[in-house]
Amino acid sequence: MSDIPANTTARVHGVGVGPGDPELLTLKAVRVIRAAPVLAWPVVEGEDSLARRIAAPHLHGGHREIAIPLPLRRDGAGVDRAYGRAADEIDGHLRAGRGVAVLCLGDPLFYGSFARLGEKLAARWPVEIVPGVCAPLAAGAATGLGTILGSGSYMVLPGTLADDALEARLRLADAAAIIKVGRHADRIRRLLERLDLADRAVHVRNATLPDQHIRPLAALPPGPVDYFSLILIPGRRDAF
Amino acid sequence: MSDIPANTTARVHGVGVGPGDPELLTLKAVRVIRAAPVLAWPVVEGEDSLARRIAAPHLHGGHREIAIPLPLRRDGAGVDRAYGRAADEIDGHLRAGRGVAVLCLGDPLFYGSFARLGEKLAARWPVEIVPGVCAPLAAGAATGLGTILGSGSYMVLPGTLADDALEARLRLADAAAIIKVGRHADRIRRLLERLDLADRAVHVRNATLPDQHIRPLAALPPGPVDYFSLILIPGRRDAF
Repeated sequence: MSDIPANTTARVHGVGVGPGDPELLTLKAVRVIRAAPVLAWPVVEGEDSLARRIAAPHLHGGHREIAIPLPLRRDGAGVDRAYGRAADEIDGHLRAGRGVAVLCLGDPLFYGSFARLGEKLAARWPVEIVPGVCAPLAAGAATGLGTILGSGSYMVLPGTLADDALEARLRLADAAAIIKVGRHADRIRRLLERLDLADRAVHVRNATLPDQHIRPLAALPPGPVDYFSLILIPGRRDAF
Repeated sequence: MSDIPANTTARVHGVGVGPGDPELLTLKAVRVIRAAPVLAWPVVEGEDSLARRIAAPHLHGGHREIAIPLPLRRDGAGVDRAYGRAADEIDGHLRAGRGVAVLCLGDPLFYGSFARLGEKLAARWPVEIVPGVCAPLAAGAATGLGTILGSGSYMVLPGTLADDALEARLRLADAAAIIKVGRHADRIRRLLERLDLADRAVHVRNATLPDQHIRPLAALPPGPVDYFSLILIPGRRDAF
């Protein structure tokens, strides 16, 4: 650590940019993005970076940018390697006194991969998190059905969980969002039918984006769905 | 409905104003608040309205305002009566063509009471929800410990649940936020100790506000805590 200038004020910000609608950036996210000399953003190989697109209206031409290319398969080791390389590049900027804002879809610490990067940097640099609007709440707002009221239990469950694990949790949930549905859509639908939850369930794709699509689970065609789509089981008014 | 002008564009917005820091308002919330002829905001009797305080920098003097006085005890029937009266007053503004923005702490449909008001109005008027940053994610960001990564289960559980109900859910959670801790703090602490979760648990009061206070659960003095404080059980890195 001795080669780090003692007077540096450089720091890392993990900035939640919200679920997709550029207007769902917070005022703090806009301020931090505008002020950061360097922006870093993850992008799945071969895809567009939604996080950068959300921030685009606030880019003033003076930013240096670091694209963090994540593997399409999103495997843990590949993601770790990508963040390892990004951490080295970010470290160089911080040593030169340039702060770095890392753009994170939704909230940086809510099912995002920022934690992998943050923990690499936090040993040497101050890391500050700007929380953001997460996708399940944005989807609940988009449906207007409500998320959860009063004294109920709210659960966020990855669709990658096995049926028995999902079932045990859903039986104890008053409301839930099943994320990472992807190729598990048909299996999850059969499970929700068996648990008598299918009638309440709604499938939401790209909440808050122009191509947002909301439909009852029963109207969802069979087969895989987008990785970023989710199934909501809204709270029941009479449950509280 | 026949007495409602057919050409009205008046609508109700349920606006999430985030957890407390006025900078955690979204750009959309600011736009909607500025444009709304009428603002309504709940205030617990005898207290200051934090929701209005968050919005205050965006009040331009031209708003009409409706305070919705909620009973201190927050009992369901009392809250329903307060929202019933507010719905009547809001209905009058909408009939006159004046849109109404209802300011809601956090996210309007996430453990808030907006749903009670929204359902009274939704039969007659368009209701649109602006999602917000919720307190558990803001608290996770404030601690920097992380909320949840990868394929784990995340649960939000009211501290008002009985021990056996809390225990059954916590045993299936990879990360959790226990909200509405209040006078249940000692009981919850004993439960978390028994479940071997106390060492990971952190108590967070007034996340993102100037008097934010974060401490390990073990350092929390015995006795009741603020109603709006919460206990976080962050995800474990090695669990994913």
